[in-house]
Amino acid sequence: MTLMGFAWRKDDVADLDDVAGLGLGAAPAVAQNKAMIEKLNDAWTAAFNKGEAATVAALYTEDAYVLPPGSAIVKGRAAIEAFWRQAAQQMTDAKLTTIDVLPLGRSAAREIGTVTLKTKSQPPQEIAGKYVVVWRKVGREWKLAADIWNTDK
Amino acid sequence: MTLMGFAWRKDDVADLDDVAGLGLGAAPAVAQNKAMIEKLNDAWTAAFNKGEAATVAALYTEDAYVLPPGSAIVKGRAAIEAFWRQAAQQMTDAKLTTIDVLPLGRSAAREIGTVTLKTKSQPPQEIAGKYVVVWRKVGREWKLAADIWNTDK
Repeated sequence: MTLMGFAWRKDDVADLDDVAGLGLGAAPAVAQNKAMIEKLNDAWTAAFNKGEAATVAALYTEDAYVLPPGSAIVKGRAAIEAFWRQAAQQMTDAKLTTIDVLPLGRSAAREIGTVTLKTKSQPPQEIAGKYVVVWRKVGREWKLAADIWNTDK
Repeated sequence: MTLMGFAWRKDDVADLDDVAGLGLGAAPAVAQNKAMIEKLNDAWTAAFNKGEAATVAALYTEDAYVLPPGSAIVKGRAAIEAFWRQAAQQMTDAKLTTIDVLPLGRSAAREIGTVTLKTKSQPPQEIAGKYVVVWRKVGREWKLAADIWNTDK
């Protein structure tokens, strides 16, 4: 059960007719998506680690879903802000590592990655997990539209 | 933290230019996607509950990801089959309930749902969780391309 995949092949790109409109080959589109997502993830972790829940929430679409372990589904930016505000009181030092980005049409992408966090308890405990994020392009900005994770234990 | 969202609005549909090519309005496309996904989920649960791991695995793309709680990332159909074979020895009576389907371009969709399972231990324990699946159209068939869940506890 330990196939840690690094799928980074041209045929992972969504149907070519979906990207052809960009006037780009498939591989550059993937690399652009990955770089763009990593930049947004840097903004996410910087805000979370400072406890700036409103800044974190602004990275999500208005109607985004967050599906946290040990909690019901969280829907919508206001509820997402409240969720991350509470989480940031208990955890910090979030690090996100993007493993694989798959464009889905022109205005969406699926990211798979791993996450580590530290609890604010003494001594701090490290939590390691993995996640799937569905990104959507809203106007010119990419936003998290669905965010779910679990722990490896 | 208990906003159980039921987002089923026309503006949840991906960019109209992505669906226009189908010659369909956005709302019918969503309904079609949801019905199609529910049918595939019925096939998934029927196979899983009979312990037919190969049939379950065939519902995934060749390069799909499964991200189970308490386990490393599982990548590729062969590893996915092995994972579900082992899981089916411990659990049964899987029920999937689709909450929300969002088309992403012409050949992908994001599903959010809830799941219940029973352990095969005596007495059986019920496990309740929620999931995100990214579906992709491969040829004429829709397949699970990413599958992640966690428990509500």
